[in-house]
Amino acid sequence: MSYSIAVSGASGYAGGEVLRLLAGHPEVEVGAVTAHSSAGELLGSVQPHLHPLAEKTILETTAENLAGHDVVFLALPHGASGEIAAQLADDVLVIDAAADHRLESAGAWEAFYGSEHQGTWPYGLPELPGQRERLAGARRIAVPGCYPTTILLGLAPAFAAGLVEPTDVVIVAATGTSGAGKSLRPHLLGSETMGGMSPYGVGGIHRHTPEIEQGLGGIAGTEVQISFTPTLAPMARGILATSTARLAEGTTAGQLREAYAARYEAEPFVHLLPEGQWPATKHVVGSNHVTVQLAVDERAGRVIVVSASDNLTKGTAGGAVQSMNIALGLEETTGLNLLGVSP
Amino acid sequence: MSYSIAVSGASGYAGGEVLRLLAGHPEVEVGAVTAHSSAGELLGSVQPHLHPLAEKTILETTAENLAGHDVVFLALPHGASGEIAAQLADDVLVIDAAADHRLESAGAWEAFYGSEHQGTWPYGLPELPGQRERLAGARRIAVPGCYPTTILLGLAPAFAAGLVEPTDVVIVAATGTSGAGKSLRPHLLGSETMGGMSPYGVGGIHRHTPEIEQGLGGIAGTEVQISFTPTLAPMARGILATSTARLAEGTTAGQLREAYAARYEAEPFVHLLPEGQWPATKHVVGSNHVTVQLAVDERAGRVIVVSASDNLTKGTAGGAVQSMNIALGLEETTGLNLLGVSP
Amino acid sequence: MSYSIAVSGASGYAGGEVLRLLAGHPEVEVGAVTAHSSAGELLGSVQPHLHPLAEKTILETTAENLAGHDVVFLALPHGASGEIAAQLADDVLVIDAAADHRLESAGAWEAFYGSEHQGTWPYGLPELPGQRERLAGARRIAVPGCYPTTILLGLAPAFAAGLVEPTDVVIVAATGTSGAGKSLRPHLLGSETMGGMSPYGVGGIHRHTPEIEQGLGGIAGTEVQISFTPTLAPMARGILATSTARLAEGTTAGQLREAYAARYEAEPFVHLLPEGQWPATKHVVGSNHVTVQLAVDERAGRVIVVSASDNLTKGTAGGAVQSMNIALGLEETTGLNLLGVSP
Amino acid sequence: MSYSIAVSGASGYAGGEVLRLLAGHPEVEVGAVTAHSSAGELLGSVQPHLHPLAEKTILETTAENLAGHDVVFLALPHGASGEIAAQLADDVLVIDAAADHRLESAGAWEAFYGSEHQGTWPYGLPELPGQRERLAGARRIAVPGCYPTTILLGLAPAFAAGLVEPTDVVIVAATGTSGAGKSLRPHLLGSETMGGMSPYGVGGIHRHTPEIEQGLGGIAGTEVQISFTPTLAPMARGILATSTARLAEGTTAGQLREAYAARYEAEPFVHLLPEGQWPATKHVVGSNHVTVQLAVDERAGRVIVVSASDNLTKGTAGGAVQSMNIALGLEETTGLNLLGVSP
Repeated sequence: MSYSIAVSGASGYAGGEVLRLLAGHPEVEVGAVTAHSSAGELLGSVQPHLHPLAEKTILETTAENLAGHDVVFLALPHGASGEIAAQLADDVLVIDAAADHRLESAGAWEAFYGSEHQGTWPYGLPELPGQRERLAGARRIAVPGCYPTTILLGLAPAFAAGLVEPTDVVIVAATGTSGAGKSLRPHLLGSETMGGMSPYGVGGIHRHTPEIEQGLGGIAGTEVQISFTPTLAPMARGILATSTARLAEGTTAGQLREAYAARYEAEPFVHLLPEGQWPATKHVVGSNHVTVQLAVDERAGRVIVVSASDNLTKGTAGGAVQSMNIALGLEETTGLNLLGVSP
Repeated sequence: MSYSIAVSGASGYAGGEVLRLLAGHPEVEVGAVTAHSSAGELLGSVQPHLHPLAEKTILETTAENLAGHDVVFLALPHGASGEIAAQLADDVLVIDAAADHRLESAGAWEAFYGSEHQGTWPYGLPELPGQRERLAGARRIAVPGCYPTTILLGLAPAFAAGLVEPTDVVIVAATGTSGAGKSLRPHLLGSETMGGMSPYGVGGIHRHTPEIEQGLGGIAGTEVQISFTPTLAPMARGILATSTARLAEGTTAGQLREAYAARYEAEPFVHLLPEGQWPATKHVVGSNHVTVQLAVDERAGRVIVVSASDNLTKGTAGGAVQSMNIALGLEETTGLNLLGVSP
Repeated sequence: MSYSIAVSGASGYAGGEVLRLLAGHPEVEVGAVTAHSSAGELLGSVQPHLHPLAEKTILETTAENLAGHDVVFLALPHGASGEIAAQLADDVLVIDAAADHRLESAGAWEAFYGSEHQGTWPYGLPELPGQRERLAGARRIAVPGCYPTTILLGLAPAFAAGLVEPTDVVIVAATGTSGAGKSLRPHLLGSETMGGMSPYGVGGIHRHTPEIEQGLGGIAGTEVQISFTPTLAPMARGILATSTARLAEGTTAGQLREAYAARYEAEPFVHLLPEGQWPATKHVVGSNHVTVQLAVDERAGRVIVVSASDNLTKGTAGGAVQSMNIALGLEETTGLNLLGVSP
Repeated sequence: MSYSIAVSGASGYAGGEVLRLLAGHPEVEVGAVTAHSSAGELLGSVQPHLHPLAEKTILETTAENLAGHDVVFLALPHGASGEIAAQLADDVLVIDAAADHRLESAGAWEAFYGSEHQGTWPYGLPELPGQRERLAGARRIAVPGCYPTTILLGLAPAFAAGLVEPTDVVIVAATGTSGAGKSLRPHLLGSETMGGMSPYGVGGIHRHTPEIEQGLGGIAGTEVQISFTPTLAPMARGILATSTARLAEGTTAGQLREAYAARYEAEPFVHLLPEGQWPATKHVVGSNHVTVQLAVDERAGRVIVVSASDNLTKGTAGGAVQSMNIALGLEETTGLNLLGVSP
């Protein structure tokens, strides 16, 4: 049997990546593809790399066009998915790549997104403690943000084991430009981004901040406070996150290494690298894999964890497909056996 | 049943790409992986993106280590494959990614490569006229060069239909740096290649020149002369070839378009784009696909054909796997259903 | 004495580069800077690299604001400069970076630009035969296009000496993305341009085609026909042009080399490289220099010339300043002693 | 009068950048240029962008060849400058771009560099408190490292004013590949660096760590401990440093802003950007300028400072020339009026 799937936001980067993965997924069939400004065009003219789907006509994004499928992917601007989702049947699996249903705190949602909170859905990061159980059979899934995915997978084992202080966490991450989507803003032009780096959202104002704190807090069982600075790097894809935390009293490097090794030993997509080998985004680009490495700085009393992902794959579409597989009862890795395209 | 496959040159870019594809190929199992300078290391330390193969130990490249497999991939420096191949059993499928067995003319080989000609093997470009028949059941296959693959697929329909003059052909192509392999030369450093372009091998001296002329000559049934200028572009992967030829007397744009459409209609990996849409290397990177578009310049009396490929995939490892599938009697596209990683 | 200079289009890439050069020019003072959509903002917020000019307020682009200076640079969209120029006094030196006044043929202008021809101004490429004389004392100057600058300097010596056939000329060039300006179009986003190449304007339809043919025709004293294919490369700045022409009967490599050496020996900004050394855009980026090299392909009967420039410097603003210096009677190289920023 | 200057390490990136700046410096004349492996070649074949110096023959790096000049730049591998400097006359201004004479602590030198300490020279970062006085008339100058330059200029005002805690400082910085020099190592190839990011020297082991701590400690008048993680970004030039520190009790955002504004108001090369505008490396590439911006994260109780520089210009050669100007009694900005080459 094959599941039918509708994909909205099909002309964007997240939607395109969902379609790239679904085109190679053996248990699904792509049904409606929808978008707004390119409705009526052939998918091949907007996403020329999706050869098997090139002849599909893009439909307008409406609940009608999305209905009648087993699974609906929403890759819409933040704030738009609640209304659409409400019109889809309860037994349809709705997977929201936007932020709308990630945060548990209505206050945090309103403070960072400025609109009314739409409720909280199961969080599609299966590697977090207890998360696979919450996703099994779910019919509503919130896809995590690309930074939170990369950073939470980098820090989770240390927080779960209580090996770091929860209130002295500093994170600096670099993202490729596709993280900003296809929006036509001057600072995203190739002329501006190639060959240079710059920060943005500095000072605790980036919208992924409460999401990361919520995730770490859930793992640690206590409130967590982070300083998070994102930067824009001259690459189309990839996130490299450098996350540091003050060591809890008595924590040793060996304890940390053991905690990470134990946590990720059986994970198909998260890899603690051999000692001395550090993550590089190029090794995971195009794949659902995340690589992690850590070092203890004894003098500074901190652990430094570096994690790398592809923001569009594991950070968005791949994580979404992985969660879909779990929710549908399929083998979790189905359709995700892609390796990084390196060099 | 599963075919066992040995891969030499496993630490290089071509070998790494062969392994990336084989790791996702459902009918094969990777056996020995060999290299020279990194023999004894784990594959994961040299090719960190190949997670499922990370624990394999790299063996020294010897006929002994490569023997005992159904298929042997040779990704060795030019001139080294003849000796190894001679020591492998006749019923082993040997696929040579080097140039050694591509050229039919011993004189051309000696002029461009400076060593003794090692003979000619079936040419692994299945889309050329009659080529699938030659590859079916073959036990020795010469993988085409990355430029010839891209350029021949760009020009073949025009030459096969006799629509262009065979002696006024000008080709300028841009390649990503991985085309030069992992060799440690100053001009290949990131500092030198990022943000800039330069030509090399100008004036008819690039080694792919006779291979392209041989290919076009075979299609046209007459001698062909080209002017070929390769350039190095600031990207890791991809070839964009701009190939122009003087129109034969009376050739119309419509005839050309029909010839291309007919030739590539049924091809799984070569795509004539809709009119007005031009190839971009980003749309095929990581995939076995090649895109082609053409325009007639009436004033200049020339057709301009642009074709794009990933030099490591369709240009090397993907083309090799495709030819292997044909030789083994598998479905030609097995293991090659990857789409371009875009953006 | 110091010349006062007004710069329109100050928020764009061409205008920004003009200002970068003028800020270091010892004989001029920047007066009004104008633009349209950013009028009222500080220049430093739009062009943050121009520290000495950061506090200037951008004015609306009007003839009133531009009047009252010794020199006016127009870096406006094509078609807009004629009207402004008509309102500026005859003794003001007006330098137009747009195409409006480059073409001699009203028919070619209308065919390629689709509006009414505004007349022809002295062409700001001083290295062309006789051109310095035409620029001396001029009060209207048309700045050449970036491709024409690079290609004409690459081919001029061969055409001036009659060493090549004028009707079998094939040119393929790669440009950085800044050549397309700051326009907000999806294919110019960093996500789309980084790591890939694509062609555009294929088939003789690029607007620089008649300008190149006009330039070569003027040098050769006969009609010239070219096939010109531009491509977009993953770099912010730089043009690499590969220009090939069929050799005239009897032309030798030695004759060509001599013609180039003689022509460029005394040029301050155009350099015939030592034999065997090829142009690279990185060596000229940020500078007014152009490098040239050539090779004869005996088998194909063609000469291949490669030339490299910075499209914004020698290709636009640097060439403009150089012409301005000549027109004002200053030393031609004043303010242009910048070297390429390499690596 | 014109000072004669010898430059060693002329074939590398630091030496090349020194020569690029000196070629445009009105008060100096380049004398001997020396290197080791390329001795005997013309400078133009190794540094093709240095047109005015192309005909100079590279000499072997010996004290004899460097002697007899007013100024000697040493751009040699770490550990090599002590011996050469000892053979140069005391009244020659020797400027060492290597690390050899930066550290005051012999213990730190031995721990991080593994050889014998060669003594401490005046530190060529004129913007640090009291530093211009130490450089005036100096005849030995140690050029700061590129990371320390960028980070110290980012943090100095906060530490000088006692507005932050000295022992909870976390710094993550990204550098372009030229920071690693021209060394032929696989991870520096274009194929490996383009399109990806990776960290290195993680865990307090990077050699710039003690230099940054020494600098901050000198400013703060107390011991400082940092956590420093460098990363390699896909660009040839540029450093973007994100430096965060815990706020001292009672520190307000206003106090910080005032401290920075006061400190940098009169500096020619260091710019506190207007509020809301963040540093981008592209705006300073090729120039001696450094841009700085800061934000207070109230929830995390930290200040985040971002600073951007060109690692080869202000981070190496430009800082060296600036210090040279001070030592020789020239106007400090002479020869350094270059602006960033943007976009």
